[in-house]
Amino acid sequence: MTTSAATTLKGQPLDRPALDSMLRRRMFYTPSFEIYGGVAGLYDYGPPGCGLQANVVDAWRKHFVLEEDMLEIDCSVLTPHEVLKTSGHVDKFADWMCKDPKNGEILRADHFVEEILENRLKGDKEARGQKVEEKEEDPKKKKRKNKGAVEAVKLDDAVVQEYEETLAKIDNYNGAELGELIKKHDLKNPATGVQPSPPVAFNLMFQTSIGPSSNSPGYMRPETAQGQFLNFSKLLEFNQAKMPFASASVGRSYRNEISPRAGLLRVREFLMAEIEHFVDPEGGKKHPRFDEVKDVELVLLNRETQLSGKTSVEKVAIGQAVAKGTVDNETLGYFLARIHLFLKKIGVDQSKIRFRQHMANEMAHYAADCWDAELLTSYGWIECVGCADRSAYDLSVHAKKTGAPLIVRERLPAPIKIEEWVVDVDKKKFGPHFKKDGKTVEAALMETSQAQREEFAKALSESGSLTIEVPGVGDGKCTVPKELVVVEKRTRTENTREFTPNVIEPSFGIGRILYALMEHCYWSRGSEGGDEARGVLSFPPTVAPTKVLIVPLSSNEQFAPFCYKLSQKLRKRGISSRIDDSSATIGKRYSRNDELGTPLGITVDFQTVKDQTITLRDRDSTKQVRADEDRIIQAIQSMVDGSKSWQEVEGELPAFEGQEVEVTIRE
Amino acid sequence: MTTSAATTLKGQPLDRPALDSMLRRRMFYTPSFEIYGGVAGLYDYGPPGCGLQANVVDAWRKHFVLEEDMLEIDCSVLTPHEVLKTSGHVDKFADWMCKDPKNGEILRADHFVEEILENRLKGDKEARGQKVEEKEEDPKKKKRKNKGAVEAVKLDDAVVQEYEETLAKIDNYNGAELGELIKKHDLKNPATGVQPSPPVAFNLMFQTSIGPSSNSPGYMRPETAQGQFLNFSKLLEFNQAKMPFASASVGRSYRNEISPRAGLLRVREFLMAEIEHFVDPEGGKKHPRFDEVKDVELVLLNRETQLSGKTSVEKVAIGQAVAKGTVDNETLGYFLARIHLFLKKIGVDQSKIRFRQHMANEMAHYAADCWDAELLTSYGWIECVGCADRSAYDLSVHAKKTGAPLIVRERLPAPIKIEEWVVDVDKKKFGPHFKKDGKTVEAALMETSQAQREEFAKALSESGSLTIEVPGVGDGKCTVPKELVVVEKRTRTENTREFTPNVIEPSFGIGRILYALMEHCYWSRGSEGGDEARGVLSFPPTVAPTKVLIVPLSSNEQFAPFCYKLSQKLRKRGISSRIDDSSATIGKRYSRNDELGTPLGITVDFQTVKDQTITLRDRDSTKQVRADEDRIIQAIQSMVDGSKSWQEVEGELPAFEGQEVEVTIRE
Repeated sequence: MTTSAATTLKGQPLDRPALDSMLRRRMFYTPSFEIYGGVAGLYDYGPPGCGLQANVVDAWRKHFVLEEDMLEIDCSVLTPHEVLKTSGHVDKFADWMCKDPKNGEILRADHFVEEILENRLKGDKEARGQKVEEKEEDPKKKKRKNKGAVEAVKLDDAVVQEYEETLAKIDNYNGAELGELIKKHDLKNPATGVQPSPPVAFNLMFQTSIGPSSNSPGYMRPETAQGQFLNFSKLLEFNQAKMPFASASVGRSYRNEISPRAGLLRVREFLMAEIEHFVDPEGGKKHPRFDEVKDVELVLLNRETQLSGKTSVEKVAIGQAVAKGTVDNETLGYFLARIHLFLKKIGVDQSKIRFRQHMANEMAHYAADCWDAELLTSYGWIECVGCADRSAYDLSVHAKKTGAPLIVRERLPAPIKIEEWVVDVDKKKFGPHFKKDGKTVEAALMETSQAQREEFAKALSESGSLTIEVPGVGDGKCTVPKELVVVEKRTRTENTREFTPNVIEPSFGIGRILYALMEHCYWSRGSEGGDEARGVLSFPPTVAPTKVLIVPLSSNEQFAPFCYKLSQKLRKRGISSRIDDSSATIGKRYSRNDELGTPLGITVDFQTVKDQTITLRDRDSTKQVRADEDRIIQAIQSMVDGSKSWQEVEGELPAFEGQEVEVTIRE
Repeated sequence: MTTSAATTLKGQPLDRPALDSMLRRRMFYTPSFEIYGGVAGLYDYGPPGCGLQANVVDAWRKHFVLEEDMLEIDCSVLTPHEVLKTSGHVDKFADWMCKDPKNGEILRADHFVEEILENRLKGDKEARGQKVEEKEEDPKKKKRKNKGAVEAVKLDDAVVQEYEETLAKIDNYNGAELGELIKKHDLKNPATGVQPSPPVAFNLMFQTSIGPSSNSPGYMRPETAQGQFLNFSKLLEFNQAKMPFASASVGRSYRNEISPRAGLLRVREFLMAEIEHFVDPEGGKKHPRFDEVKDVELVLLNRETQLSGKTSVEKVAIGQAVAKGTVDNETLGYFLARIHLFLKKIGVDQSKIRFRQHMANEMAHYAADCWDAELLTSYGWIECVGCADRSAYDLSVHAKKTGAPLIVRERLPAPIKIEEWVVDVDKKKFGPHFKKDGKTVEAALMETSQAQREEFAKALSESGSLTIEVPGVGDGKCTVPKELVVVEKRTRTENTREFTPNVIEPSFGIGRILYALMEHCYWSRGSEGGDEARGVLSFPPTVAPTKVLIVPLSSNEQFAPFCYKLSQKLRKRGISSRIDDSSATIGKRYSRNDELGTPLGITVDFQTVKDQTITLRDRDSTKQVRADEDRIIQAIQSMVDGSKSWQEVEGELPAFEGQEVEVTIRE
């Protein structure tokens, strides 16, 4: 895992501070409440960020929800305690934190241990005169870079090995173990030189109280999924009882990160888009449309490769990956391919996507398989989409807790006969015989397994009674004489089958995708002829916040009506445009819009006034064509809806070069 | 204010329970967490509700944001304490609540007093043998209908008058006053027969804690506006310093209602769409596009009419209303007209809209004028859109608190000369003369007004010194000899003007609009020929959740590919459709989609297989036309984008009647 330094779309080294400063200057995003000093992990999207987000969500809806007739629902963020207790979030959705007793600083325990040990290992390498290789950065690490300097101190070989082994398992320690590591290795907060307090669990959900009394605790949801699970039966009915089907939700979720520091990648409030695809667990989880995607090639980093300590990937058709068993089933594979196609469509760099399989210890115990779509950014490989097979876990726990039948009842094609051992109790005799324990003994009998019942039948016929363990009654064992009970094998006919569907869950972190997309589309237009280097965001037209910049050549009053008419025509076709009639030079105005990622520019000039023709400029090549308004608008439409590329348009319309000279003369 | 019983779109009496049950059955909405018993005031939107919401928000964006190049931003919901302290929400965004000491029930104090007094007045009328007239219902009242029965007890005339006066002012009492009313009139909770405890303020914001330490209190925002105000300077810069401009936000807000009970109208979590239009307070707040709307007629219920105890409205062109001064200024009037046009576009019943002006005591002290767009529903007139002129209040308080310059600096067309009195202090002599008090005396001098300075100049020339009050220095008065100070009139040139913009704020409660829209579009298809009455939701095609239902005449396999091809073609044009190939009769399938508000239906039958023609059915008239696929799709497109009505389409394409008979024979 050596560093592959981050690069721009054109392969230039990525200057993250320059990009960040441009994104803030152009108001793609801005820290929330900045004039009040800001709050870590909270950001606002300004107009271009908001537009980019809306377009990506729109593309997501078309690609997933509309294409597959998914049932989109919109659920409450406020969630009562009991729901998240059942889902496991109240008990398990936590990080370990410790406090520095001297300055009160709160530290995330695993990050703290990891960082100090890494610094010691670096110090050891320095002391040994070895080259300190940076590992691939990941945001968990990056955010702590400012902590503690590296001191060149040589360590024993055994210590080095111990540290390395600890770091390899850092995600698996619980609070007590992290506390022991802190004591054992005497890990001190570099800021104060003291050991932090033992780690305590910090639940990552924002808690609040619903209603005026304080006895209705609630949380802001940490994911949109629970609302979809709770509505399962209604959704199934809405879908006219047809299986399989998927629900989908786009909405905010909240995680109270202990100390968020990786910009847009680790935030406390974020937009998620989640799909819950409900599928019959029997029949190998086939997908009816798998054939359509089977040849899509994905870059996979599977579990075995990671176990062997490598990060080497393979590019493989999803059909093959499922056939080989690398990916657990067709439905999961189908969604991996669809996720890939979606990321491609919105402009994610194809060389910066990989699908990483979760290690067994990363997955929840109930999960059958799980893959993350990771995007390469200057913070390293970032998990942007998770795609898990969650088995029947969620529906089962909520059904068990509430008694609601979160199941599918399916009419069998033909009735089936079921042979089974049945227990019948003679209630009239049972009560008088066992008195106050009657109900308890009866319940114990009813809960027995088929195997136990077979034993009982044997015992009854052989010895005239059966013996059953009933904790709390007498000495814990009860003898039931054959006068009170019949145990026999009977045949019953079933017309329906009941099952709890399994859930395949593609879950998208929209904010992370947006950030990765901005890095992937960014490049810098070299400083030709003494110009400063200028930033460009080469968003595909489909997701670009604004599609067309309209610039009048100068402030000459003749141009204004042409610009207005053009913007109205574009608006009618649903194409967003913006007129820039400021007094800046055309070059400066285009520059500003390169930074905003606007793919196309129209110039209205004196020729327009004469013959109604306009020029159309391509952001990426800065080439221009000239034609009449209708042909230009037609070309724009086809590029925005993705049916044509600039290259095709360029081939069809007459090229145009430099009107500025002529104009200077004429004005 | 006598009752005007609620009616359907066709003037039938509105059966709210029937509508509610239909909306839930079709999953327009459903109580959140229902399998856990639900939480009052929290609802989920199912697929059609979610679709309707998305389409209404989309129409809103096109009508407001795109049409006016507003700057849409997306801000954090989590908001730190200090921001909402400054805005006034921490101190003032509260209702008064009391507790029943016997059963612990929590009551909203004003609602409690109102309800008991109203019941006593009704009881008095009954005792006097008068007809008890229901007032126009409003949701605040409706929700408490289940409380306390009316007893026929006659009251003294003086008491009746006192109660009536109290009720007229019920919104103006503070907690102490409500407490006094409870004591004075001995108001008891009907459920227990005891007086509730004295009212205490209950803040309606959901509180939480941001980050791991407990010293960062925060709230879930009660409105989206604050995020827009805090970003003012960045937005102005983004807008290249041009004024006026507007920002806009669509997002969730939260209000912890004490006991929400009016269905979708009073909820704890809701979607808002807010616009903040920033305008120069000088020059009468003209609007450049006011001329475009000046003839739009609005139904206005102004302040004077309400003061005189009436609810009579006038229908008046907005141009006239502004000219007469009924509506304060053009910008406010412009938005009232635009709001009206928006409501009309999405299908709100034109006879059920009015704009009600806030009474002086309803408005915040800083507001210049405020109008609510109210929609008539079975709960009475409901505030769905507020439109307030908030003056410079919000920007001023945040600027004052943070020191951020939330102002506009405008280059003056020509420099202006300003004559003013100036104070110059001779620093070298001032210090030695006043010693430790030097700075204080100097500061006091610098803070003096123009009038004071004129006095000083006179004093200096007449007596050789000036006397100024400086609290805390000596006996509170200081004498400054003319050797230390010069006070004289000078002329200075100003090139820029600074001002704090005023804010016009149209604020939309999307959930309330959706509910009103569902009531306004609902009607019941009479029970002709023995059929049950069937519900219809006549949404305009633009906002209908699904535009087209595609039904194959039967499960015959020949039909499936036609249906699929049609749905693909519609999808390409961005038109949502749904295939219903269930085994129900065509009538039943259309019925289901009438309830879902799907405006158009296509039937694929044997004729289709032969000649590729299909029939198109209009939901509202149930009439059908038949033509080839392309012409039908073209017609659908024009109805969905609003350019044609069904009547026009019907005039252009051949009518079609009843294929069902023929089919029965052929199958």
